[in-house]
Amino acid sequence: MSKGLLFVVSGPSGAGKGTICKKLLEKTDIELSVSMTTRSPRPGEKEGKNYFFVPKEKFLEVLHDNGFLEYAKVYGNYYGTPKDIVLKKLDDGKDVVLEIDIQGALQIRDSYPKGIFIFILPPSMSELRKRITGRGSETEDDINLRLGETLKEVSYIDKYDYCVINGEIDEAVNRVAAIIKAEHSRVSEDIYKLIAKYKEEM
Amino acid sequence: MSKGLLFVVSGPSGAGKGTICKKLLEKTDIELSVSMTTRSPRPGEKEGKNYFFVPKEKFLEVLHDNGFLEYAKVYGNYYGTPKDIVLKKLDDGKDVVLEIDIQGALQIRDSYPKGIFIFILPPSMSELRKRITGRGSETEDDINLRLGETLKEVSYIDKYDYCVINGEIDEAVNRVAAIIKAEHSRVSEDIYKLIAKYKEEM
Repeated sequence: MSKGLLFVVSGPSGAGKGTICKKLLEKTDIELSVSMTTRSPRPGEKEGKNYFFVPKEKFLEVLHDNGFLEYAKVYGNYYGTPKDIVLKKLDDGKDVVLEIDIQGALQIRDSYPKGIFIFILPPSMSELRKRITGRGSETEDDINLRLGETLKEVSYIDKYDYCVINGEIDEAVNRVAAIIKAEHSRVSEDIYKLIAKYKEEM
Repeated sequence: MSKGLLFVVSGPSGAGKGTICKKLLEKTDIELSVSMTTRSPRPGEKEGKNYFFVPKEKFLEVLHDNGFLEYAKVYGNYYGTPKDIVLKKLDDGKDVVLEIDIQGALQIRDSYPKGIFIFILPPSMSELRKRITGRGSETEDDINLRLGETLKEVSYIDKYDYCVINGEIDEAVNRVAAIIKAEHSRVSEDIYKLIAKYKEEM
């Protein structure tokens, strides 16, 4: 059996990476990577489904043991991707998708370079502005700051393998699904095993 | 408009690359590269569809002008892929598929390294033996010679980007179609143009 592949779906906030991952889980056999966090569960959030909720001591212990593919501290809470859970799934032949911001993706490029990195882009800055404005929770200044931030983040695109423009959501999901299928046909070590089998057959 | 991509579908004889290309043409917008040859048309073969039929002088003139992506001389006849026709289609934004043996594919890797190289493999040597035997035109010795040749050819697989195992034909075609779709999402120069547009929008 061949090993699973890790797909890192990343991009600026508002590009729609969350929706793409959700639809991908419905459409394919891929499994979502669940993060560990020190923050408290919100109403409706389930242990092991949305997050693994742990005390700060436990998180720092895992961190000390180099047990995260990436981690971050946001507003005083820690978030991290547990390495052993992801690697176990991959070893079991399951593909794993990880939805993450750009800083996290860059960490994973170092900790798991065999990952496949997909950057999700909004179709245009004006469309991104519309989407952020539609949420209604931010001022004009906040929005301009966010868009400026997005432009900076987009410059990291050359660290990625693929770029999917999320104009129409189903088309974007189909593209990511095609990337998953194609990556399983890459010439890799598995192919050499097959060739060895051919030789034995002769 | 972005440029088209050149997909080189190659592999040992009997792997089914011809059938895959035929189904790909039905299923997608990709266009087939038509070869130039000095051999005479067989009954039913059409100029410009099966081949461009030319006199030997014309072929050698094109060859002298470095006008082929690859060429070969087989049983006294010349065959070649005209560079200008393929490049024109790519410039027009059309994808092109080229079905070719391994020697030809290796030439194209040099003449057009931006091509995407797909190796078609039979599911097993015993299945390949069955397919060749089924054609009924070769002796046991011929077949063993062919299979030995195939094993040698398979060792060139590391010059390829993808490998598709042709067990079930529709699944194999779907895999090649996924590769085409995925390759259009590769981070490339086109993406940098899009990012420049984002910056202008700000």
